Amino acid sequence: MLDIIGKNAREAAFVLGKTSTIKKNEALVKISEALNDNVDEILKENEKDIAAALENKMKASLVDRLRLTKERIEGIALGVKQVSELEDPVGEILGMKLRPNGLKIGQMRVPLGVIGIIYESRPNVTADAFSLCFKAGNAVILRGGSDAINSNLAIGNVISNVLKQEGLPEAAIQVLSDTSRETATKLMKMNQYIDVLIPRGGAGLINSVVKNATVPVIETGTGNCHVYVDESADIDMACNIVFNAKTQRLGVCNACESLVVHSAIAKQFIRAIAARLNEKGVEIRGDEVCRSIADNIIPATEEDWGTEYLDSIISVKTVDSLDEAITHINKYNTKHSETIVTKDYANAERFLKEIDAACVYVNASTRFTDGFEFGFGAEIGISTQKLHARGPMGLLALTTTKYIIYGDGQIRE
Amino acid sequence: MLDIIGKNAREAAFVLGKTSTIKKNEALVKISEALNDNVDEILKENEKDIAAALENKMKASLVDRLRLTKERIEGIALGVKQVSELEDPVGEILGMKLRPNGLKIGQMRVPLGVIGIIYESRPNVTADAFSLCFKAGNAVILRGGSDAINSNLAIGNVISNVLKQEGLPEAAIQVLSDTSRETATKLMKMNQYIDVLIPRGGAGLINSVVKNATVPVIETGTGNCHVYVDESADIDMACNIVFNAKTQRLGVCNACESLVVHSAIAKQFIRAIAARLNEKGVEIRGDEVCRSIADNIIPATEEDWGTEYLDSIISVKTVDSLDEAITHINKYNTKHSETIVTKDYANAERFLKEIDAACVYVNASTRFTDGFEFGFGAEIGISTQKLHARGPMGLLALTTTKYIIYGDGQIRE
Repeated sequence: MLDIIGKNAREAAFVLGKTSTIKKNEALVKISEALNDNVDEILKENEKDIAAALENKMKASLVDRLRLTKERIEGIALGVKQVSELEDPVGEILGMKLRPNGLKIGQMRVPLGVIGIIYESRPNVTADAFSLCFKAGNAVILRGGSDAINSNLAIGNVISNVLKQEGLPEAAIQVLSDTSRETATKLMKMNQYIDVLIPRGGAGLINSVVKNATVPVIETGTGNCHVYVDESADIDMACNIVFNAKTQRLGVCNACESLVVHSAIAKQFIRAIAARLNEKGVEIRGDEVCRSIADNIIPATEEDWGTEYLDSIISVKTVDSLDEAITHINKYNTKHSETIVTKDYANAERFLKEIDAACVYVNASTRFTDGFEFGFGAEIGISTQKLHARGPMGLLALTTTKYIIYGDGQIRE
Repeated sequence: MLDIIGKNAREAAFVLGKTSTIKKNEALVKISEALNDNVDEILKENEKDIAAALENKMKASLVDRLRLTKERIEGIALGVKQVSELEDPVGEILGMKLRPNGLKIGQMRVPLGVIGIIYESRPNVTADAFSLCFKAGNAVILRGGSDAINSNLAIGNVISNVLKQEGLPEAAIQVLSDTSRETATKLMKMNQYIDVLIPRGGAGLINSVVKNATVPVIETGTGNCHVYVDESADIDMACNIVFNAKTQRLGVCNACESLVVHSAIAKQFIRAIAARLNEKGVEIRGDEVCRSIADNIIPATEEDWGTEYLDSIISVKTVDSLDEAITHINKYNTKHSETIVTKDYANAERFLKEIDAACVYVNASTRFTDGFEFGFGAEIGISTQKLHARGPMGLLALTTTKYIIYGDGQIRE
C-alpha cells in the first residue's frame, strides 16, 4: 500500500517538475477558492475529530488547536492564495561558468522531488505544507496525527479534486489515512520514493523521526533561546527586548527561555526586568548572584539551563565575561535563536561569529525568527540543523540544484 | 572513549571556527612539509599494513591502493599544500537585506563543525579529507579501514604534531585506532558531537552508513551513468564521447555503464561504436534490436540496466523516443551523471530539465564530473543525494550558514 503511494508520489513529482509556474499558480488560486467553497464539508469532518477529542478528554488548548472554524478555513485558503503570489524558485540557473575546455557549467534549481511531512494535530498544516511543496514543484506525502485525521483527509480531498480538474496529478498530495506508528516508521525508511522528511511538532516527534528515519531529515526545532545582556547594554532596550522575547507569545520556539546577564550590570538590570516580569506573572529562576539582587527569584537548577519552558517561566544566569556567556549559551542552547544586547562593537561582532545557532541577533528580539518576518512570504518550519537549510525555511529550502553542463563534444584526456 | 573523542572534536571545532585564514594556511603548508619530512616513518607503518594484507591474501589491486611510496606521499603532501592556496569560504556574508522594520538580515558562511569520515583502504584519504575539513574550519574524526590503520595513524600523528606546534588544537584531526564495526556504528549515532557524516567507499559501506546513522549523512555515490545518443546525434561525436566515458578509466563512479540509443540512428551508430569497443576489449550487453545490428553482443538482462560494472562491460538499450530514454534513465540511474548527444536544441533542453541526476550533460563525456574538472580546486566526494550538496563537493560543501541580524532595539509587535 505504502509502496503504491510512494510510486504515485514519484510519478506526480516528475510531472510537477515540468509544470509551468503559471499552471501551478492557477491551481493554487482554484484550491484556495475550493477550500472556501467546501467549508461546510470540512467543518463536518472536523466536528468528528473534535467529538473524538472531547471523548478522549483532550486538553482544552489542544482541542483549540484542532478546531476549525469558517474564519480559520478562510485563513488557510488565504494562505494558499498567498503562496500563488510568491516567486517560483524552480528553473533558476545559478553561476554558469565557462571552463578552459569550453564546457559551460551552471546549477539549475530544481524541486527536491517527493517530500514527506510528519506532523501533529494542527489541520492547517495539511494545506500550508502542500501549497509550499507544490509551488516548489514537489509531491507531498502527509502523515498527520490520528486526532486530526478526518479534517486532514477532508482538506486533502478538496485539494486532490481541484488538481484532477486542472489536469494535474492528484498524487501531488497524498494524506495517509493510516496513522499508525508502524506505517509512520515504514514511511521514514522509504528512501527509494521519498527525498526528504520534514517533521513538524514537539521534541518527541522530531527525535523519533531523527532516530528512525533512513530518508534524509530536515530537523525543525525546539528553541531554548537566550538573551545575553552585555555589560554595556542600554538598560531600557535590554528590558524591552527580554520582555518582548519572553512574553509576546509563550508557546513558540523563538520565545526567550533563558537570560544571561553580565555581573557588572546585573544589579541594575535584574531589578528592572524582574519588576516587569513579575508584574506580568512570569516566574524567574536564577543563580545565587541573581537571587541576591531581587526578591521572588526561585533557585535555578542545572536542568533549568537546558529547558525550553514554552511557559511563563524564565531562567537567569549571571556571568563575568562575554567568553563565559558564549560558552554557557553554546552549551545549553538548541541552536535556534540567540541575542546580545550591547553598545560594544567588538562584543557584538564576537557574539555573531562565535555563537552556534541558526539565527544570531544584535539588539533585537529573538521573536523575529520566522519566515514571514525574514521576508520569505511563507515558512515550512525553522531548521535547527546545519545541512541544506538553517533557520526559517521558505520555498528555496524545498528545492535542490543539479549541475547542467553544455558541451560541444568534450572528452576527458 | 568515543565520548571523549566527540567532546575534544567539538572543542577543537569551536577554536577552528575562530581561526584566521592566514593561520590555517600556514598550518597546512607546515603539514605538507612535515609529511615529506616524515616519509620514512610513514612508509615504515605502511609496511606493516602491506605485510598484513599480503598475509591475509588481499587482492593485488587492493594492495596497490593501500601501498604508499615516497612519490605517493609527495603527492599527498602536494595536495595538502594546494588546499592552503584555495579561497577560504568561511566568514563570507551572503545577501544582507534591510527589512522594513530596520533589521538587517544576512547569512554568514560558517564551518559545519565536526565532520565524521568513514572510509576504506586508501590512506591518502586521511590527509586529503583532513586538509579540506580543516581549511573550512571543521574538526574531523576519521574512521578508516582496519587494513590501513597503521598508515592512517602515522599520517594522523604527523598532522597532530604540527597542529600542536602551531598552537592549534590537536583534536582538529582524530584518527580512530579502534576500527571495529561496533565503534563505527556508535560513531554514526553521536548526534551531540558530530554534525555530518561523509562515507567514502563502495556501495556496501555507503548503504550501511545511510541505514545506521542518526547523524545527518551526505551520501557520496555509486554511478550507473548513461550516455543517450539522440536521433540527431553526430555519429563521430557520439562515438568519441561513449568511448571516452566508458574506457578512459574503468573503475570510477563517473564512467559510462549504459548506453541508450534512439532506434532511428541505432543501425549506423551501434555498428560504429561496437567496432571501437570490441577493439578495446569491452563486452557489450544489448537488447534484441541491438543484437540484430551487430555481432558479438551478449543479451542484456533486466539486471544489466541497473548495474554499475566498474569494469570493461557496457549495456546498450534502444528506445523509440526521447521520452522513453528519459523514463529509462530516471528509472535505472543512480542520480550521478548523464549525457545526451544531440544536435537538437529542444531535446537538449528537455534532457537537462527532466533527467534527475547530480550532473546532466549535453554533448560531453560523463567523466568530467569531478571537483577539479569543475574548477573547485579539490573534492571531498561526489554527492548523489539532494540535500545540502549535490554533485562534486569542494570546500563550500563543508560549510553551512547562519543568519546574522543587526538591530537597534527592535521588538515584535
